[in-house]
Formats: sequence, structure tokens, C-alpha cells
Amino acid sequence: MFEEKKDLRIPGPSPVPPRVLRATSKPMMGHRSSEFKVLYADVVGRLKPLFGTEEDVMVITGSGTAAMEAAVANTVSPKDKVLVCVGGKFGERWALIAESYGAEVITYEYDWSTPADPAMIAKHLQENPDIKVIFATQNETSSTVLNDIEGISKARGGSDALLVVDAVSSLGGAEFNMDQWGVDITVTGSQKCLMLPPGFAFIACSKRAWKVIEGNTSPRYYLDLRAYLKEVKKGQTPFTPNVQLVYGLAEVLDMLQAEGLPNILRRHKVMRRMTRTAFSAMGLELFVKDEKYASPTVTAVVGAGKFDVEGYRKVLNKEFGIVVAGGQDHLKGQILRVGHMGYSTPIDMLGVIATMEVALKKVGCDLPLGAGIKAAQEVLAE
Amino acid sequence: MFEEKKDLRIPGPSPVPPRVLRATSKPMMGHRSSEFKVLYADVVGRLKPLFGTEEDVMVITGSGTAAMEAAVANTVSPKDKVLVCVGGKFGERWALIAESYGAEVITYEYDWSTPADPAMIAKHLQENPDIKVIFATQNETSSTVLNDIEGISKARGGSDALLVVDAVSSLGGAEFNMDQWGVDITVTGSQKCLMLPPGFAFIACSKRAWKVIEGNTSPRYYLDLRAYLKEVKKGQTPFTPNVQLVYGLAEVLDMLQAEGLPNILRRHKVMRRMTRTAFSAMGLELFVKDEKYASPTVTAVVGAGKFDVEGYRKVLNKEFGIVVAGGQDHLKGQILRVGHMGYSTPIDMLGVIATMEVALKKVGCDLPLGAGIKAAQEVLAE
Repeated sequence: MFEEKKDLRIPGPSPVPPRVLRATSKPMMGHRSSEFKVLYADVVGRLKPLFGTEEDVMVITGSGTAAMEAAVANTVSPKDKVLVCVGGKFGERWALIAESYGAEVITYEYDWSTPADPAMIAKHLQENPDIKVIFATQNETSSTVLNDIEGISKARGGSDALLVVDAVSSLGGAEFNMDQWGVDITVTGSQKCLMLPPGFAFIACSKRAWKVIEGNTSPRYYLDLRAYLKEVKKGQTPFTPNVQLVYGLAEVLDMLQAEGLPNILRRHKVMRRMTRTAFSAMGLELFVKDEKYASPTVTAVVGAGKFDVEGYRKVLNKEFGIVVAGGQDHLKGQILRVGHMGYSTPIDMLGVIATMEVALKKVGCDLPLGAGIKAAQEVLAE
Repeated sequence: MFEEKKDLRIPGPSPVPPRVLRATSKPMMGHRSSEFKVLYADVVGRLKPLFGTEEDVMVITGSGTAAMEAAVANTVSPKDKVLVCVGGKFGERWALIAESYGAEVITYEYDWSTPADPAMIAKHLQENPDIKVIFATQNETSSTVLNDIEGISKARGGSDALLVVDAVSSLGGAEFNMDQWGVDITVTGSQKCLMLPPGFAFIACSKRAWKVIEGNTSPRYYLDLRAYLKEVKKGQTPFTPNVQLVYGLAEVLDMLQAEGLPNILRRHKVMRRMTRTAFSAMGLELFVKDEKYASPTVTAVVGAGKFDVEGYRKVLNKEFGIVVAGGQDHLKGQILRVGHMGYSTPIDMLGVIATMEVALKKVGCDLPLGAGIKAAQEVLAE
């Protein structure tokens, strides 16, 4: 097969548009030059509408986890009580980071196939009114559940608790209205809906969050958000940034603006509907039952009992050039996850779905050919 | 002028070879794929000879400062006594990071135009035998001084203090023998002699350092070296790595191996000698007097009294397409720094030096044309 035709259908890194890859391969420039300042000020300004915020968006050279840790290190002091919503691997990660900073962590664990219930957050706050920060995940990549962040925010009622949201695998693919929803800190990464290679993490903070950040006592230097804020106001970064990804980001923002955010969000919803409808028509079980809480960027289907998930993944990859993800932890061997985020179109999904039907035959799963792709076509034809 | 012909003569980011930029623009791959594991295990293994170590080299997606902080966060517990050698901005950075982790910081400040004196380190250790970690800078980018790391290491005598070295702007351009010299932690970055865009930081630790790291109590998650060590043994990373830079790194390592480390180090020494000899022949004063302690990757010349440093930089950039750096802090307006690291050759330096002579005329500095370039030619002809 053609190596460069491999279709990356994992939930990140997602495919990077060729024009973005070309942009990242421009010659280096000095990050203290006036040309860089102009470029940088432009891109950070254009990130704001994606977050739905008027606040500054800061760029950290690092993985998404670096921005998650920045959120913790800048708001959590040792012995602070925090509430972590855990319904998958990335909820767990919030808890691990908070624990490593000496927080007293209360976890609200919910079933991996369902969203967090805002009423439970209200209950936890009632029982522990001294909770200082709530950590949530908008799109739990490991479970493919989309959480109701607005509902979680409202559930705080009159509490002063900050709401910190991991929107790594959703921002730019699902609605996110940081200011309107009252989210205090939003973190995301470059390699999901933002169509870039991994290497940048983004973070924005509310005015309320900044007050906590100023008073926070946890040690931090590279992830000290005060340094990023001070510099971003001048079109600068506190540490040498990945200049290559700044070039790419400018190109990505051009693409996002040309398509328009409402169209982008609609495209992701169409891909979700196509993928879910196709799997159902194929007689397979969706891991997340209610589409309202299903991720618009990645869809999970239950393999257990129907086909060997790991064997199917291998056939898809080696024989058909489609790379999908399996399940994590207790879902390993149970579910298969198919990414449809960022540089992905409904047309791509027609090809993916039709191919997945054929590949199922190869692993001895005797489902009739054509039912899934026809269902997906019907969604797209609507 | 042709924008892409701009010659980046700052001490990082340094120019990236076109073939490396092309390599970084290959399509994404999943970082949990078997293909990635093979690629990653190969590149991290090939980094070892550059460090002069048999230990694992770990790759952090982040700026060089992220690796500096990793060295601190993993070895320094609150109230630990540490000694920081400060002879420029990056020595100061060690002190700032250590302070932010609650260390009791003793600074050994030395003149920015001279190297740290190993005897002074021995003296500090005698006065404070409870010093746990010594932080030093091999190549102080802000002053262009190359420190005697082997001498500093030996000055510890029988002390148990760890020696942590910032080799960000020298590793791959100056001799570095981590194991032989007894260095405990070495950090470097991608954007200097390793000819990559910024975005990767590298770190290696001695067995002695690992013992301290295991017992350390400072909070850390993204920069927890134990997680990196565990994963690198499996050809993996604990967090999503910058896949693009892994492609680039493989290409860089091919280039470095083809040239051979002894030839690379010799090339940097020739560029140092050419640049220094040329400036002297032009009647200009070198900031670092003794070539033995002068950086092989960046050279500083004193402008004050001879020409307006900032005006000269502007003319060089706008009219001649050569981007050089000024001084930092008290050296701003005093010195000019010319980078000759990584993807830089003696042939490049002939062009740079000849152009710099012409540009000096434009800022009213009446030095005879030709003396500098002739001196550089003579060095190269030797």
C-alpha cells in the first residue's frame, strides 16, 4: 500500500493538512524578532473565538498534559480540596496531577459510557463547600463521551469553586463557550481538532482564575502562567517557542476562518451521525447510547462478542491502511474507537465506513455488506 | 531581499537544514503504533554518543527550560541547599528555577566575560558540605563563555553533590563527555547544534542522579523523569510527543553520523577561530579574551565605543539579511553576538564576516575593508 495514504483514524494525533505541513517547513526565524511578534500576536488573537473567550489564550510548547499540569500547578496549593470528575483515562489524569501537587482529591466517578451528572457535582459541593477547584473533561477521548460543561458549570450554584476543563480532543470540533458558560480555565492541544502536529498546548483563564493563580504557592517555572500572560501581551513567549508550529497555526487559523466555526461544528456532527448510524445499521452496538452525549470527534463501537477487536485493528491497518484505536484499561479488547476530528470530512468517513465493512468479513464477522455504508450515505444525503 | 535567504546568525533557534524541514513535514503517525516505537527507540539510542553517555536519553516535548526545570524538580526538595554557578542569563535561570522549588540557593557569581573557576566551587563545597546539587552552564549563551565542566566536576572531590549541566547551546558543537567527566544530569535543546526547530528538550541522568530522583519529594507530573525513563525503555513516551520533530531528529542524526562527531566539533572550532581572528583583525575587541574559554558556537564582539550595536544589528538585518543578536541585561548595547552553530559552515562564515565588514561602513564605523575577511580566509586556508 502507499504509506502516505494511510488514514489516521485514531483520536489524535489527527491528520495534518498538507498545506499546514508545508507551512511548518518554512525557514526558522528568531522568536525575539519584530516579525515574530507580529505573527505571534496575530495567531494568539485569532485563537480566542475558538475558545469562546475574550481572555488571552496562552501557548505552551508541550503536550496537552503540560497545559493540564499548568492548570493544576497554578490553582492548587498543597492540601487544597479539589473535585475531579472521572469517567475515563483523562479524568484519571486530572486526579493524578492534582494528587502529585498534594491536593486533597475527591473523585466523582461515573460510568465510562455515560456523561457526568451535574446534579452529582452540586451534591459534592454541598457536602464539601470548601472545594476550591473542579476538574472536568469535555470530551473523554478514552470513552468517547461528550460532557455537558455548561450544566456542570451551572451546578456550582453560588460556590466559588473554579471550573477547569480539559477540552483537548474537542475544542474546534464541539461547541465551547468559555465565557458564556463560566468556565475558569480551558486547556487544549494542537494535535486534535486544531489539525497541527503535537507539540503545542493552549490555555485560557478567567479573571476569577487569575486571582487564584496570583495567590497560588505551588512551585512552577516553565508552567508559570503569570510569565505567559505577561509575555503574550507583548506578542511574546517566556521561553523559546516551537516556531515551526507557530507557522502551522497561522495556516490552520486561515483554514478554520475560511470554513467558519459553525460549519466546522456542523461537519463534526454530520461525521458523528454518519458513523453512529452506520455502525448501528451494521448490527453493531454503540458504546455511548445517547447521541446527545456522544463525542462529535471520535466514536466507539463495541466489538466484544461480535469480532476480535485487536485482530480487526491489525487487518484494518495492514490490509486496508486505516488506523483506528482500541479501548484502554478495562475497555481494551472491548471497544474500537474511530476518530473523525480536524482534517476529516464526511467524504473521508464514507470511505472509512465502506472499508470497515469489508474488513469485518476478513475477521470472520458475518454481517451483510452494504448496510452500514448505505445508512451513512443516507445521513449525508439529508 | 529574498526572505528565505535570511541568514539566522543568532544563538538559537539556528538554521534548520532543508532536508530536515522536509522530513518534519511527513504525514502524522500514531505515537502508540509499532512503527513509531521502532523509530523512537532508534533515535533515542543514537543520541547517546552526543551526550557521551551510556545512560538513556529522554526527550521532553518542550523548550530547553522544560528540561532545566525537570532537572530541578526531580533532584531538589524544598530547603535543599544547592550551589548555582552564575555568569550570565542562563546561570541566573538555574537560580530562579531552584528558588521556585524552595531550595536554599547559594550563588557563585563570576564575571560574565570569564569562566567559572573550579577552585571556587571546591571552596563553596568546603564551606557548605551539605550542598546537594551544583548547577552549571557549559556554554553561557548570553556571555559566549565556554565553561570547564570537567574541571567543575573534579572540583567536587569526595562530595556527594550532584552536578547538573545546561548544555543547551553547546551539545553537538562542543566536546561533552558526560560519563567520563562524571556529570550527573545533562540537559539540552533541539534548536541549537542539533539543527532542529525548537520544541524538544533532551535530558540524561547518571545512576547516582537516579537514586536522588527516586527519593525526591517535589511535585511534578509532566516533568517526572521516572515516567520518561519507564517509557523510553519501551520505545515510548509518557505523553504525546511532537511526532514531527521525531521525524526531523532521525534525519538530523543521519547527518551528524555522516559527518562524524570529531569533524563536527572541529568545524565549530574553525568557525570560532575564523570569527575571532576576523574581529580582531578588524580592530574590534572580543568580549571573551582567551579562546580556550570562548564558545565554539557563538562569538561576542564589543561594540560600545566603536559602533552603535542596535543600529548595526538593524542595518545587518534590513539591508544585508543577516540576523545577529545583541547583548542581554547590562550587556545590552555593549556587545554583539554572532552564532555559528549547527547547520553552519566555515563557508557561511566567510560570507557573514565579509558582509559584516561592509555593513560596518554603513553605520559610520571607519575601519579598513578587507582586513577581517582576509584573516578569516587565512584561518580557513591553514
